[in-house]
Amino acid sequence: MDIRRRNNVTVTGRTDGPVLLLAHGFGCDQNMWRLVVPALAEDYRLVLFDYVGSGKSLPAAWSEQRYSSLAGYAQDVLEVCEELDLREVTFVGHSVSAMVGVLAAATAPERFSHLVMIAPSPRYIDDDGYRGGFSAEDIDELLESLESNYLGWSAAMAPAIMGNPERPELGQELTTSFCATDPDMARVFARTTFLSDSRADLKTVTVPTLILECRQDVIAPPEVGAHVRDAIPGSTLVTLDATGHCPQLSAPQATTAAITDFLGTRR
Amino acid sequence: MDIRRRNNVTVTGRTDGPVLLLAHGFGCDQNMWRLVVPALAEDYRLVLFDYVGSGKSLPAAWSEQRYSSLAGYAQDVLEVCEELDLREVTFVGHSVSAMVGVLAAATAPERFSHLVMIAPSPRYIDDDGYRGGFSAEDIDELLESLESNYLGWSAAMAPAIMGNPERPELGQELTTSFCATDPDMARVFARTTFLSDSRADLKTVTVPTLILECRQDVIAPPEVGAHVRDAIPGSTLVTLDATGHCPQLSAPQATTAAITDFLGTRR
Repeated sequence: MDIRRRNNVTVTGRTDGPVLLLAHGFGCDQNMWRLVVPALAEDYRLVLFDYVGSGKSLPAAWSEQRYSSLAGYAQDVLEVCEELDLREVTFVGHSVSAMVGVLAAATAPERFSHLVMIAPSPRYIDDDGYRGGFSAEDIDELLESLESNYLGWSAAMAPAIMGNPERPELGQELTTSFCATDPDMARVFARTTFLSDSRADLKTVTVPTLILECRQDVIAPPEVGAHVRDAIPGSTLVTLDATGHCPQLSAPQATTAAITDFLGTRR
Repeated sequence: MDIRRRNNVTVTGRTDGPVLLLAHGFGCDQNMWRLVVPALAEDYRLVLFDYVGSGKSLPAAWSEQRYSSLAGYAQDVLEVCEELDLREVTFVGHSVSAMVGVLAAATAPERFSHLVMIAPSPRYIDDDGYRGGFSAEDIDELLESLESNYLGWSAAMAPAIMGNPERPELGQELTTSFCATDPDMARVFARTTFLSDSRADLKTVTVPTLILECRQDVIAPPEVGAHVRDAIPGSTLVTLDATGHCPQLSAPQATTAAITDFLGTRR
């Protein structure tokens, strides 16, 4: 198995720089990082990839079973790390990938030095004493709607997730990304994402961790960022002066600045 | 001029009930009220209409000059009130229409008994000591984007405004409504809306006023609801357990309950 080809791995940036591994979320691919790559490339060796089932990954490598749990996505991350023999990795995960990074770091702690979680949520559904922002019925409705009409669902879902209505091109870009994903694979990834409960995994984190949230995010209310911070001792929560669920596209400079501040490399 | 025909006036509900005049916002028409009409119709005489330039109003009655200021929209409201000889009106305005109601009530105070403002904003652009949620550049970008591609803009803007990504049919409904609006008339209404500054008008309000906001609204941050409440002495601000900019569609029961609680008619 050619992992580089399977996960469409791209390596760019400063060859001798510390490694940032950039991991996209549901319905996206490595293109999601396009606005932060130029600045980060000056100081870091950047490793980008597409999860199997997303972007330009190899569809033949997909299996419903493997990608029905977040551990399957973490396996992609670990195999990319192994293939490139990455060490001292700062894992930067967007949305559901933030939790994938937690799982990967728990499985192979020797490879990871820092975690950056962008708009993470360890559980989308409300629970006793926990507000995830959605009821169980909300999530059932979301998944049923996706399964009955994936393209229509994407066209309405993606702009709502992106927010920033004054810049509709952002929502259109996310819609295009969602629509480019195979509907069957998207269905599995969506179920895995929106039905996940990774709260217990947060306590496994031992590396310095930055949590980036936006002021307003339709996917995760402010309580979620606070929950993640409280669950990871010593972690840092930064609320960006940005809205929506994708600050790396809507506020790339603020996102880059927060990451480089955290890593102590801000120019 | 046949005002009923011009503004596509609909009268429904309890014939001898107190009057609710339901006024839609930008890019919408009276259909916006479809999910609250059945419950409100039990107790109220409901008057619905479409502003000239929206819905099934008469396009021939439109003029760029009149509809380039919120006072022009208030004129529509007042002419509907006059035509139907409405008194003791509770004006229920959504979004920009909340401010239209303020202007109408200041012009003809004898007609209005209460104001209900749903997701209002007296100014969208930040100012010294005021947070509207958008920079001047944001709003310029929004208007330029609208003017260059109205249908594309609508498809991305409407779902972002609606929020509630778990129910994409809501965003689709708003997209359809936006797209059904004449692009030239929409351009004028959008400029009038997003460049408005009606903060000084808030102090003219003398009738009991209910302000309804959602927990999360991409059009207006929480500071805006607080500003409106503070600017209208004795007004009541209710934060609905709802998200997005259109609670009458996304949370119709909570919206109806808040209105009927305020008016003292909740069953």
